[in-house]
This record gives sequence, structure tokens and C-alpha cells, in this order.
Amino acid sequence: MSNILIVHAHPEPASLTSALKDIAVETLRADGHAVQVSDLYAMKWKPLADAEDFTDPRDPDRLIYIAESKNAYAAGTQSNDIAAEQDKLLWADAVLFSFPLWWYGMPAILKGWFDRVFAFGFAYGVGEHNAEHWGDRFGEGTLAGRRAMLIVPIGGHMPHYSDRGVNGSIDDVLWPIQHGALFYPGMDVMPPFPVYRSDRMDDKGWADIETAFKERLAGLFSDDPIPYRTQNGGHYDGNQRLKPELGGGSDGIKMHLVREGDPEEVLRGKVRHVRPIAS
Amino acid sequence: MSNILIVHAHPEPASLTSALKDIAVETLRADGHAVQVSDLYAMKWKPLADAEDFTDPRDPDRLIYIAESKNAYAAGTQSNDIAAEQDKLLWADAVLFSFPLWWYGMPAILKGWFDRVFAFGFAYGVGEHNAEHWGDRFGEGTLAGRRAMLIVPIGGHMPHYSDRGVNGSIDDVLWPIQHGALFYPGMDVMPPFPVYRSDRMDDKGWADIETAFKERLAGLFSDDPIPYRTQNGGHYDGNQRLKPELGGGSDGIKMHLVREGDPEEVLRGKVRHVRPIAS
Repeated sequence: MSNILIVHAHPEPASLTSALKDIAVETLRADGHAVQVSDLYAMKWKPLADAEDFTDPRDPDRLIYIAESKNAYAAGTQSNDIAAEQDKLLWADAVLFSFPLWWYGMPAILKGWFDRVFAFGFAYGVGEHNAEHWGDRFGEGTLAGRRAMLIVPIGGHMPHYSDRGVNGSIDDVLWPIQHGALFYPGMDVMPPFPVYRSDRMDDKGWADIETAFKERLAGLFSDDPIPYRTQNGGHYDGNQRLKPELGGGSDGIKMHLVREGDPEEVLRGKVRHVRPIAS
Repeated sequence: MSNILIVHAHPEPASLTSALKDIAVETLRADGHAVQVSDLYAMKWKPLADAEDFTDPRDPDRLIYIAESKNAYAAGTQSNDIAAEQDKLLWADAVLFSFPLWWYGMPAILKGWFDRVFAFGFAYGVGEHNAEHWGDRFGEGTLAGRRAMLIVPIGGHMPHYSDRGVNGSIDDVLWPIQHGALFYPGMDVMPPFPVYRSDRMDDKGWADIETAFKERLAGLFSDDPIPYRTQNGGHYDGNQRLKPELGGGSDGIKMHLVREGDPEEVLRGKVRHVRPIAS
């Protein structure tokens, strides 16, 4: 049995987003997992990165956030709320994020969780940094070996988020979060669980959603993650650009997915084996 | 001469991001423009969307944010800080957003500005909604005719954000903001002004940045915006999917840019003419 953290961002306990969170807690506990919830609105989570995040600042007169974050993480002088969330992440084998899609991104309170909890030395600035190795990131890092999944109610319609949809595909929209915030510190990112037309749900629609959601929860540790390419697995050149022979002619983020026909060392990556997409 | 709003999100007045904001204020005023600044940290902007945003809620016991936003915008019962920012947007001919890229997105305080200020009836839920017309959005809407530009210091290196860079291209990373939050309510989005390696800037580097930035400010009303396709200009089908004959084979967000060779009605769009990209 595993440890699962749910980071939840919705102001209304009676919302559809909160109902999905409740289902996740119940289902995962019934399956024998240990579950912790960071209910950010209920916790009155402080969303703003500022000088108060550091109890013993190096420079009280001028805030260089990255430098203070590096110092405070190493010295154990981060504010307690930040350190507590980092401890939960280290405890967890998987992390679920439940939030409504607002303006094509996270609600501010959840963005502020990333801004503050993902400290220098914890989520970035990890590993050797030199002209040939840009740190342990994108598949490696402090959170490697953990799984992440977004649970995202969305007001819009599914076709509008399809591969040719007017919003960009759901993969394009979630790219900065899934690849930029979750894969960066090493997590294996599962395909998201979007719920479209979340404001027009009838009972039948909700029953179908509940069934599909429980299937995804059951597969949390057995389904395949998104096959993002690792930074240090042989895919990218010294300037961190995808090698010209890779990517199958894609001109979008799909180039960053491992695909059939890639060389064997690239298929394996450096740290993990993933299921390639069709080429 | 024009009216320009700068929405600024950085906690430290002595930061590079704040220096760019100061240059923008001085340069634009010297050119005769009227400038207002919403300095979100200095204003102690409330970042969280919650029940306090509505002075006369329809349902005090259960928060349905969209419904309350719609009601409060129409009834004039939004909290004053929200209405004040909407007034600034209506006053402005152009809006600059200056913020550091944190975890591939906006700082929480700026995300909370969008979450709260971009109300139902103001930035979304505008225009006729039926099975054939999904509102006035993506090129049309309340903020049509206004220009927007992101000013974005970034810790990473330019090649890492190039077309094949490990982060995705800068266009991929900024897509949810530029297309999702700015083009949606109708603004013409200018190419961004990213400043790479912003934490390792020497005097020569800074002088070059300052020169380039002033050129971009001088071209704010004459340079070409990003040629995003309008939603209602003939590019998309009834399911809001890009028509199969358009997009030049792109499998990423580049498909949503108007390109040479598109049919004439699509080149013109419904509301504006843009310079197409090469096909």
C-alpha cells in the first residue's frame, strides 16, 4: 500500500472539484492507501512568495527570492508551512492535484503553493550544474519515483480542447504545469483527468465521471505515465535542444514525447523506461 | 497619445523585473503617453477568488463563483478592487504585464488578478452563445482593439526555450497566458519581451536589454501582433476545431497562427487583418 497526497484548491466544499477530491480520499483509503490532503483554501494557505517565507534572511533589505530560498532550504530556516508541504511530498508515493481550470491555468492559491514549496535545492537547483549538465531535472530530481496526476474540472467542451481545438489541445494547455512544474523535479506525470462541461453536469453524466475516475485511481500505480523525454537521457544536445533526428517532424510539444523508432538509449532514457507513442 | 496600463508583479522594487517596469513608465511618459501602474505586491492585491469578492451574493451559503461573478458584474456588486482594475483596462489602449516566470507561469499574485478581474460578462460570457456561436472571444470581446505585451525575466537560457528547447518553446510556455487569458477577451497580443538568464546579468548585457526594450516600447502600437486565428473568422468548424485544410500540417499551437496561403476570408479574419506567418 502506498502514500498519497492530494493538493486541493477550491473555495467551495460543495463544488464538483471538491466532490472529486472526496471520492479520491474515500476510494484510495478503501483500497488501503494512506492519504493526506492539503486543502489549500481550508488551510488558509499563504499564496504569495515574499520576504516572510524566510525566518533568517541573508539580506533583510533586498529580497532576492532564489538566493533566500536556497539559503533557507539548506539552513532549515524556511517558514514552517513551506517545510511541512515539502515533508508531505517526500512522504508521498503519488500526488494528486484537484483544481478547476481558471483562465487556462491553476487558481492563484495553487500557483502560490508551487511558487513557495518548490524551493531551490528541493525542486530546482538540484544536481550538478555545468556547461554539459544542466542539473537533475525533467525526469530526475528530488521527487523522482513519485507519480503525479491532475484532476481538472473545465467549463468548456471536450472538442474545444482536442488536438485541433480552438483552446489548443488539453496537452498544450497543461504543458507548463505537467512538464514544467511536475516532470521538472522528477515526477512521473500520469495523463490528466479532465472533466469537461463541469458546470452543466446531470446525474447520468456524473455517474459516468465517477466510474471513469475510480478506474483512473485504480490504475494510479499501474497505468503508463506520459512518456516525456528525460533531460539527461540522450535526447537533447548541449544547448538542451532536441536532437534533429528525434521528434518525428512535430513542431509542437509532441516532439518531447518518446516515440517508437527512437534509438534504444533514448527509448530507455537515463532513469526509466516508458511506453513510446506511435511514430 | 495613448493610455497604457502596466500590471506589475514582483515583491522587490530593486529587482530586474521592477527595473524594466520603471523603464517602461519613464519611456512611455516621455513619449507623451498616459501611464497607470497596478503594482500588485505594493497594492497588497488580494489574490484569492472567494466569497468576499461579492458584496451582495445570491447564495451566501454555497459559492458558485461563475454565477456570483455574472450576477455581481451585472448588478455592480463586485468588490471595489475588482471594479477598479476593470476600469483601468477599459481606459487602456495597451496593457503591459511585467512579472518573472516562476514555474513556467505567472506569480500567484498575478494569476489571482486574472482569476478575479476577468469576470463573467466582462472577459468571458460575452456575446451570443448558441450551438453555432460560442461567444465573442479569441479576437473579439470587451477588450478588443487593445494591445497586450508580456515583459518576462526568465532564469533559464534562450536555447532551452527555442523551437526545440527542453522547456518547450517560449511560445508553448506562454500559450495559456497569451492566447488563453489575453487573446480570449479580444486583446491583440504582441510578441513577448523575455529576458533570459535574468539572474546573471552584467552591465553590457543590461545595456543591450535596455536598448532592445525601448525599441519594443516604441513599436507597441506599430509592430505586428501575434497572428492568432480569430474564433469567429472562418478558421474553426462548429465544434471549434481548426478546419482540416488549415494549419499547414502543424501538430502544435503553431496551427493556430494565420499563415500565407490561407483562404482570403481566413486571412482577414472577422475583425482584423494580421500579417500571416510563412507557410
